[in-house]
Amino acid sequence: MREAAAEVLAIGDELTHGFAIDTNSAHIARELEQLGFVMRAFTVVSDEPHAVCDAIRNACSRAEVVIATGGLGPTEDDRTRAAAAAAAGVELRFDADSWDRIARWFAGRGVQPPERNRVQAYLPESAEVLRNDWGTAPGFAMRIDGALLFSLPGVPREMKNMLSELVLPRLRAEFGDLGTTAFHELRLLGMAEAELGQGIAHLMPSDRNPNVGITAHSGLLTVRIAARAATIDDARALAERDAAEVRAQAGAHLLYEGSERIEERAGKLLIEKGMTLALAESCTGGMVAAELAGVPGISAVLLAGYVTYADMAKVRDLEVPASLLVAHGAVSVEVAASMAVGAARRTGARLGVAVTGIAGPSGGTPEKPVGTVCFGWCLDGHAESWRLRLPDLGRRFVRERSTIEVCAAILRRL
Amino acid sequence: MREAAAEVLAIGDELTHGFAIDTNSAHIARELEQLGFVMRAFTVVSDEPHAVCDAIRNACSRAEVVIATGGLGPTEDDRTRAAAAAAAGVELRFDADSWDRIARWFAGRGVQPPERNRVQAYLPESAEVLRNDWGTAPGFAMRIDGALLFSLPGVPREMKNMLSELVLPRLRAEFGDLGTTAFHELRLLGMAEAELGQGIAHLMPSDRNPNVGITAHSGLLTVRIAARAATIDDARALAERDAAEVRAQAGAHLLYEGSERIEERAGKLLIEKGMTLALAESCTGGMVAAELAGVPGISAVLLAGYVTYADMAKVRDLEVPASLLVAHGAVSVEVAASMAVGAARRTGARLGVAVTGIAGPSGGTPEKPVGTVCFGWCLDGHAESWRLRLPDLGRRFVRERSTIEVCAAILRRL
Repeated sequence: MREAAAEVLAIGDELTHGFAIDTNSAHIARELEQLGFVMRAFTVVSDEPHAVCDAIRNACSRAEVVIATGGLGPTEDDRTRAAAAAAAGVELRFDADSWDRIARWFAGRGVQPPERNRVQAYLPESAEVLRNDWGTAPGFAMRIDGALLFSLPGVPREMKNMLSELVLPRLRAEFGDLGTTAFHELRLLGMAEAELGQGIAHLMPSDRNPNVGITAHSGLLTVRIAARAATIDDARALAERDAAEVRAQAGAHLLYEGSERIEERAGKLLIEKGMTLALAESCTGGMVAAELAGVPGISAVLLAGYVTYADMAKVRDLEVPASLLVAHGAVSVEVAASMAVGAARRTGARLGVAVTGIAGPSGGTPEKPVGTVCFGWCLDGHAESWRLRLPDLGRRFVRERSTIEVCAAILRRL
Repeated sequence: MREAAAEVLAIGDELTHGFAIDTNSAHIARELEQLGFVMRAFTVVSDEPHAVCDAIRNACSRAEVVIATGGLGPTEDDRTRAAAAAAAGVELRFDADSWDRIARWFAGRGVQPPERNRVQAYLPESAEVLRNDWGTAPGFAMRIDGALLFSLPGVPREMKNMLSELVLPRLRAEFGDLGTTAFHELRLLGMAEAELGQGIAHLMPSDRNPNVGITAHSGLLTVRIAARAATIDDARALAERDAAEVRAQAGAHLLYEGSERIEERAGKLLIEKGMTLALAESCTGGMVAAELAGVPGISAVLLAGYVTYADMAKVRDLEVPASLLVAHGAVSVEVAASMAVGAARRTGARLGVAVTGIAGPSGGTPEKPVGTVCFGWCLDGHAESWRLRLPDLGRRFVRERSTIEVCAAILRRL
């Protein structure tokens, strides 16, 4: 199993100005690592022609395969074609076939092909055209300094399609012996990152295979394992050995394993179990419903959601007794339970779940500081509730952490 | 006004494996450009020690200032300290003050300082310590190859605080004469990117100042202008000249100007006008409510939100006549209007807004394909409704574009 390095290059002023975030490179990295390539670096570079040319040259001098995204559009700031030609020391040539395809793309939409899109058909002399069936900009492949450079559009949908349809099959044919990388993710809630890190420190040296790391997002810890081996079975077995150690450390804090987001996982479980659900949300303001609604098929079980900031809405829509609100306040375990019961009863759902809390920045008191969130749970008529005191790491954190708490409850309790 | 280049370096296996997305670099880029630095490239590199060392060396050879984030934690895969020392050709030294601060940080939390955190106090010999008052990992600053390298933690909150409190003041003192960059953003809805690009092509050459570009997200176009000049007033005037041309091209498609997200803008307008609102959402599933709920203070006007996928929920919670559902179907302008009226009437809100559509992947028909979305609007008892036929670019696109449509309606109609 030989080692081949790949690099990714994202091109665009919108990235270096910080107007947009590069998400293409992460997608490409995952795909290439599964083909067995080793990823050591991404580069993000502005549209400035010399900077693009240098970045292409440098990446091609370090890696066997370089995938560049962006800079293939019809506008003045799309310079990848010329920069790649300069890096290879060749001229641009007009590719009549590509111009034909661009013209037909426009014609198919009843539009005269704009003359300015013609620049998209000028490609480096030595390049092989990569047909773009999902947009106007053709990509191209060429050798520079012994490396194989692929240039793809920056539009994620076009990039992803061209990568999987054109680039990956080509790499598979040309680099057959690289082995593969298996990925495994374990998700934990309720454990401190430092504690977990201490427990699995021996798995985490950066030059070890598998490569193991921890990331934290809104309180949810993810242990990620990337294992390289000659075959996918070997890679998976290698990853599984480390996963077993992580499980032992995580104990009851382990929520689930896999690459799905927690909201997706919770939504799929509800659908699988046919568990009808009604949501009552105050501080999360519909975030739980919106996240679950991202899962195709959820409409079969998510009967209704109520965003009830106002006390009046809690009384009217969820039949929370006004006396309860007066006695305990809207942010209380008592009101949370009552909201969950009300949502389930109103809709006939088997499960009612409620969130009421103080997301900040204002609204906190000494007894109920910002970050106090109460959760209600009513399954088949049996109501429970609990409270979290989250650190005040901002409104967004409190709302996201609360949404995770609801999804975790679904995963743990159903 | 002299030109000084800066680069950003994000370090971490979680980034090169595609497990996490680098958002630190964009934040740092914006801050440095406002100080007048020119950003040409970011690098993302794995924790592999040689790769980190090479990346530091290369960045320092190209730029006058390099800001590195990540790799300062206490775990085995945190290698930035050693890599920076190797890049500078110096050894690590134990910094007793930093260890003291780390120990006190733990003691303040009632915890014995773990022995393994001691590695965080080993810094390159020639480095100056950057105190971290927001976490355990100290940062450092040092010269490598004539460039000034700052190494900061990867945790966004710690990074941002150290950048603004320690790094930016230091850069301001040392590079006083760089001028500044003013940013301006214009947001358009309903215009094709290619059409806009044709209209403002003359503003978009990549070596022009201001630098002008277009990005598209879920149908919302953003024209971003970055103007460099000696003073902020000059930079703003330069940006404004281009903004005027964009406005002329955009015409009625211009929604608003500024760096705020559209949901934030819409939420603030509702709060400012004291416009009470009730939402009725089907295919967006609470996304409109959740996005608006991200705006502090929204609870004063967002009276309630109803997530009503099921027909029964539309009838029960929004008093949509069952006959209307039978006659026109749930995805119809008639039902959308009725949902908006029902939400406003039930809550007493001045404004009721409804969304009902087919987000896919299933549920489409020849007459109502995936992407058909109907919107209802009821202001002070006057109901209207309209329909969009969105391209089927996936469930997420349809839901996000629909959420943007509601926000755009709020901005345009109020």
